[in-house]
Amino acid sequence: MIRSTETIQGYTYGGKDIQPSLVSMQELEDLKVTVGWMDDDPIYLRLAGEALEDQAEQIVDHWRNGIIAGIPNLARHSRTPEGTPIPDYVINSGKRFQQWILDTCLRPYDQEWLNYQQEIARRHTSAMKNSVDGVRSTPYVPLRDILAFIPVMNETIKPYLAAKGHSTEDVDNMHRAWCKSMQLQTALWARTYMDETQGSSEW
Amino acid sequence: MIRSTETIQGYTYGGKDIQPSLVSMQELEDLKVTVGWMDDDPIYLRLAGEALEDQAEQIVDHWRNGIIAGIPNLARHSRTPEGTPIPDYVINSGKRFQQWILDTCLRPYDQEWLNYQQEIARRHTSAMKNSVDGVRSTPYVPLRDILAFIPVMNETIKPYLAAKGHSTEDVDNMHRAWCKSMQLQTALWARTYMDETQGSSEW
Repeated sequence: MIRSTETIQGYTYGGKDIQPSLVSMQELEDLKVTVGWMDDDPIYLRLAGEALEDQAEQIVDHWRNGIIAGIPNLARHSRTPEGTPIPDYVINSGKRFQQWILDTCLRPYDQEWLNYQQEIARRHTSAMKNSVDGVRSTPYVPLRDILAFIPVMNETIKPYLAAKGHSTEDVDNMHRAWCKSMQLQTALWARTYMDETQGSSEW
Repeated sequence: MIRSTETIQGYTYGGKDIQPSLVSMQELEDLKVTVGWMDDDPIYLRLAGEALEDQAEQIVDHWRNGIIAGIPNLARHSRTPEGTPIPDYVINSGKRFQQWILDTCLRPYDQEWLNYQQEIARRHTSAMKNSVDGVRSTPYVPLRDILAFIPVMNETIKPYLAAKGHSTEDVDNMHRAWCKSMQLQTALWARTYMDETQGSSEW
């Protein structure tokens, strides 16, 4: 399932240093109800994960080089404050980005997953951005940029979901489950931003 | 355009008491770039608004009575702390909910719109919830519940967008513009939550 044939720098899912989430499993369950989570959503996410597995590199390339690179306001987050590219940072965070696509689809949404959601969010706030990779870059990614980039990902993921010949209905169900997961995750990340940033500075 | 043949209790769009948004028009422009906003999105939103105009009541009824009513965690926000329905609150906030659908589609996203986004968000935080209607209900709607309900709205709006016989391509474009607007708005609301709540309590 989860590809990890090669070690991904800074990818520490399930590791001992990951702090427990401030969100409880019960709160996650309530959130799932709100988001309209169905019993078959994990099934369609798994199907999506299988479809996306060998396309994850291409998808992240599409998002980063095809879209983010053309938006200076977003592109700066993987560069130095002076705007110089940081190749290793791009490579390693890109691999983690790919792995996140697969984790979204293939991991059970259990306590370990919940904890890592918080870790992912912290790595985008000033609490931890740059530290994992030991780089000098923007101090944080504003939450608004994450929230606003979601529809771009939701839209552009469609052809990749459809690329393996599944029926239109299956692709629609995979996409619906994907979109629900995005909203679950961003809701969790918003909590971390509120905890870590104490006010609006990293909005 | 914007229907206001009847006065809507507590609907104060463009009113003198609306505070200026803490978000600048430039920040809104940057957000639009991130969200992939296109020149024809306002055109498709207008088309959507025209399609939804005489269905807004039905849509809000669908969301509230068809979905929210079945989720106690959400339904409580229009009831007293003891769980008693508050009919006037439901009616008036329902009309504002309908008007919000139309404003999403038919209003220009200018300074007035930006200011009212902040007002809408404040009315969901403890800064202002209940005060507009003078009711006793939950002190705030957690941000997570708003974020997590977005995909439900995005999904269920589809048949209403398609109900007026537009081409599949037009309906897709209307839906895409709608989804982008949802993310723009939730990003703006997140800012207000961070400003107003200073930490995670209303996450």
